[in-house]
Amino acid sequence: MDNSVRIDSFQNSLAGFMQQASYSKIFVIADARTRTHCYNRIREFLPRHTLITVPTGESHKTLATCEIIWNAMTRAELDRHALVINVGGGVIGDMGGFCASVYKRGIDFIQVPTTLLSQVDASVGGKLGVDFQGFKNHLGVFQLPAAVLIDPAFLETLPESELRSGFAEIVKHCLIADADKWNEIKSRDLSEQNWPDLIQHSVEVKKNVVAQDPTEKGLRKILNFGHTLGHAVETHFLSKPPRQRLLHGEAIAVGMIMESFVAFQKNMIDRKTLDEVEEFIFSIFGKVSIQTSDLDAIVSLTRQDKKNRGNEIRFSLITGAGSCAYDVVVTPAEMKKAVHYYMGH
Amino acid sequence: MDNSVRIDSFQNSLAGFMQQASYSKIFVIADARTRTHCYNRIREFLPRHTLITVPTGESHKTLATCEIIWNAMTRAELDRHALVINVGGGVIGDMGGFCASVYKRGIDFIQVPTTLLSQVDASVGGKLGVDFQGFKNHLGVFQLPAAVLIDPAFLETLPESELRSGFAEIVKHCLIADADKWNEIKSRDLSEQNWPDLIQHSVEVKKNVVAQDPTEKGLRKILNFGHTLGHAVETHFLSKPPRQRLLHGEAIAVGMIMESFVAFQKNMIDRKTLDEVEEFIFSIFGKVSIQTSDLDAIVSLTRQDKKNRGNEIRFSLITGAGSCAYDVVVTPAEMKKAVHYYMGH
Repeated sequence: MDNSVRIDSFQNSLAGFMQQASYSKIFVIADARTRTHCYNRIREFLPRHTLITVPTGESHKTLATCEIIWNAMTRAELDRHALVINVGGGVIGDMGGFCASVYKRGIDFIQVPTTLLSQVDASVGGKLGVDFQGFKNHLGVFQLPAAVLIDPAFLETLPESELRSGFAEIVKHCLIADADKWNEIKSRDLSEQNWPDLIQHSVEVKKNVVAQDPTEKGLRKILNFGHTLGHAVETHFLSKPPRQRLLHGEAIAVGMIMESFVAFQKNMIDRKTLDEVEEFIFSIFGKVSIQTSDLDAIVSLTRQDKKNRGNEIRFSLITGAGSCAYDVVVTPAEMKKAVHYYMGH
Repeated sequence: MDNSVRIDSFQNSLAGFMQQASYSKIFVIADARTRTHCYNRIREFLPRHTLITVPTGESHKTLATCEIIWNAMTRAELDRHALVINVGGGVIGDMGGFCASVYKRGIDFIQVPTTLLSQVDASVGGKLGVDFQGFKNHLGVFQLPAAVLIDPAFLETLPESELRSGFAEIVKHCLIADADKWNEIKSRDLSEQNWPDLIQHSVEVKKNVVAQDPTEKGLRKILNFGHTLGHAVETHFLSKPPRQRLLHGEAIAVGMIMESFVAFQKNMIDRKTLDEVEEFIFSIFGKVSIQTSDLDAIVSLTRQDKKNRGNEIRFSLITGAGSCAYDVVVTPAEMKKAVHYYMGH
């Protein structure tokens, strides 16, 4: 078994993985979009397999879709020595990995992330799961894939909005762990970024953090910078009309500005750092329109964040560009000020 | 955290566990039967908690019941530092443990097994899950509880049929691992057995095996002696009228006779051992009526057994009283002979 992340053409990295593997059956999961744009590019390199295609999008990241997948696994008579290959973005990776980890108490799976977001974030670290009752990733497990095969060529299949969404996690990895890289990316526009280099960098930052704390008892929480308010914004906008909804990275970009302001309020970063974060993120992501009527709902949604303990809401906050603290208690009043700050800029 | 099994009064063992624990909330799961007969006996010893009661019985060990539990956990606003206490037999332990292991990617749980079967088997070893599409424990995870609190006083709440069902796993533990204990129990009737001693013995046999192979890659499979055909018989009888259905241990008792005959066919045990196993099990469990029309269905159901690899059906078979082999390939023809043998005796 090889837990390593391979950044290479799919053909090469799959061949490398399969050389040392022995599986009874292969089962591929894709969604309607990745079936057309990604699976069809790589199917010639895959051994004999069964394919299941599920509907595209976060709204289908549910137990109901898992039941469809588990039914298909059962019909295909997968035994404990079968391999699941997840071809898609974070939704397919999280859900397909969860389905594999629970089927017969766990079979092997490999992640083939096809979006920038999943290449730099979801595919590394072993967090799997589905949404439940409107709460993101409310049900899931920690389980490492047998391998992660990242092919930067898949980025050609993405619209610019998807590239931008994935970039938010790259920005986060720089802000929490690497001041030099932050200075490098913030001097460039989206179209000028070096994707293979940034993917490699993000994977290394994340692997390094996860290796020190696989199940998020402590340090791993720094990966949640921007995510407490970001998830709340993302969840809140799910109730809006489709054209107002946010991609994950777009919501995290909002969250990083709001949470940088919380850090500034608490004297953890200076005004200059706050301004730099804000300016760069606005230049790439623009500004999301948040109304006063949204405010209470957003603050209230942070209560379901998994980092909390009892009634305390706990944040991960940068302490400068390139470093991050965790388990910082933030009050609803401080959160409201941060949302107001975002709205006013 | 303490993974140990405590065999003592619930009051004592809970106090011992709680002394070193710190949880944000306590959530108790019971079924309609254990709520009345068990929870009400121990509620005075429990700290402040939320109770959920689910319907009784294996037919409710489903994802649908898990959804009810996850909804209740969400309404109770359990965070990652909450504790789930499962008060019940194998169904509650397997399902409640699975729900806890998946909620927010896993929170602590303790098992309070209230049947003999769950005290000597299900509560030890970390196998969790629910049935799916008629397949037993088809969805689940391996996850150890924070503690297992076994109170032999709960046995007073059980009808004799439940005591007998649990005894089947005790018989199994003796047959696969301890010839002396097998000689001891087979000289006694059900009413003459020393339960606290046998519980202790079974827990030790199982813990010892599980410690050497937690995720059942090899040795742990010996715990499945009697279970390949036993599960098939159990599943097949689910389609019969309620009064013909079998308790788990009753089906495993059938499976142990059939599989001992398979072992005899393969020259793994001698005729004397086969006769002894058969005679003792029939004396305790009587004989289940299986028709020729049931035969193909039973053999066919062994295909979903989790020990299989590809199209091969693999058994764990005793090689004498007190020892057991695993990964023994058994053909459908051999299985049919074994079912016939059972029917003819």
